[in-house]
Amino acid sequence: MAGLFITFEGGEGAGKSTQIQMLKSTLETMGKEVLLTREPGGSKGGELIRPLLVSGEADWDAVSETLLFSAARRDHLTHKIWPALKEGKIVLCDRFSDSTLAYQGYGRGNNLEIQKVVTDLYKIVAGDFEPDLTLILDIDPKIGLKRSCERTGNTEKRFENMDFSFHENLRTGFLKIAQENPTRCHVIDANRSLDEIHQKIMEIVKEKL
Amino acid sequence: MAGLFITFEGGEGAGKSTQIQMLKSTLETMGKEVLLTREPGGSKGGELIRPLLVSGEADWDAVSETLLFSAARRDHLTHKIWPALKEGKIVLCDRFSDSTLAYQGYGRGNNLEIQKVVTDLYKIVAGDFEPDLTLILDIDPKIGLKRSCERTGNTEKRFENMDFSFHENLRTGFLKIAQENPTRCHVIDANRSLDEIHQKIMEIVKEKL
Repeated sequence: MAGLFITFEGGEGAGKSTQIQMLKSTLETMGKEVLLTREPGGSKGGELIRPLLVSGEADWDAVSETLLFSAARRDHLTHKIWPALKEGKIVLCDRFSDSTLAYQGYGRGNNLEIQKVVTDLYKIVAGDFEPDLTLILDIDPKIGLKRSCERTGNTEKRFENMDFSFHENLRTGFLKIAQENPTRCHVIDANRSLDEIHQKIMEIVKEKL
Repeated sequence: MAGLFITFEGGEGAGKSTQIQMLKSTLETMGKEVLLTREPGGSKGGELIRPLLVSGEADWDAVSETLLFSAARRDHLTHKIWPALKEGKIVLCDRFSDSTLAYQGYGRGNNLEIQKVVTDLYKIVAGDFEPDLTLILDIDPKIGLKRSCERTGNTEKRFENMDFSFHENLRTGFLKIAQENPTRCHVIDANRSLDEIHQKIMEIVKEKL
């Protein structure tokens, strides 16, 4: 495909939303066409599924949850991401498949069975397609969660409400994913100033352009 | 598991809902504990997913649709069907996995790729578990659709709105599934009186009890 697909990953309070906005602005200043989107959600169908995942109304097990994330992802890919990439756009996505693997497959402990479900479902959803670049914003959960709690007005607190060890496991998961996908994934130390992080991200993105 | 899991399948207007109610009554008269349920839906999570599938609000492709059916099924199995079977109940389910295979894998033509997706997803959702008995109510779509249209007050018309060839394909799909699962599946001629159909169903069910 003609465009470039960049995903942002990481735990709570790592600053993904801020950095993705900063990257979008800089790329647009350079004259690039950018589509900013997010998961779960991002397309009409995906946004219909999102409340089911974040409201905590139903008691999904890990398999149901992964199936719902996968349905939302398939809709997002077919209706939004793939068409934009075919048009040559740069697509920036706030969370993608690595979050599913980290949250479902590592968050509640290193669950090999669910990791296989997540991986098998990804192949059904996307085949061999994967992001051109994945930026993993890494931060000590103690610092990240503190930042996250300081934000206000966020009612989608299902994951943030989980215990501290969950967030440690999540970090371990993301670092393991990065290790296993060294070409696609870049781990970025997110315990620095916004500008320093943005500068580091721009270095990596410019290499890809 | 201690109980018995019986699924009802077939095209529109074959009389599934009526026959499942008649079977429930007769079994209860015999002193059996019966749980009547349906798909998509049947559990809290499943019923949250159901409107996404039947409203026609989103434009799901066959893969997304199958993922949503699978998420609903997993929730239904874990929260309702498996617990009831463990308690020794007879569970009667209005549509189950064969409907997904018939509608998604055969309805729009004999789609081998989607049939594989449906089968792979079923294994993720349920492993080796399958119904003890599947009753496929078979009827000429011309007769079934006429019956179905005569019903009133049904606002969930997404599938019923499909064209006639779709329903012919659907019938072919169900008959193929029956052929491939001769121990589990029984095809019942549904172009007979309610009592005749019920009697035939009771013969088959009594053998299983």
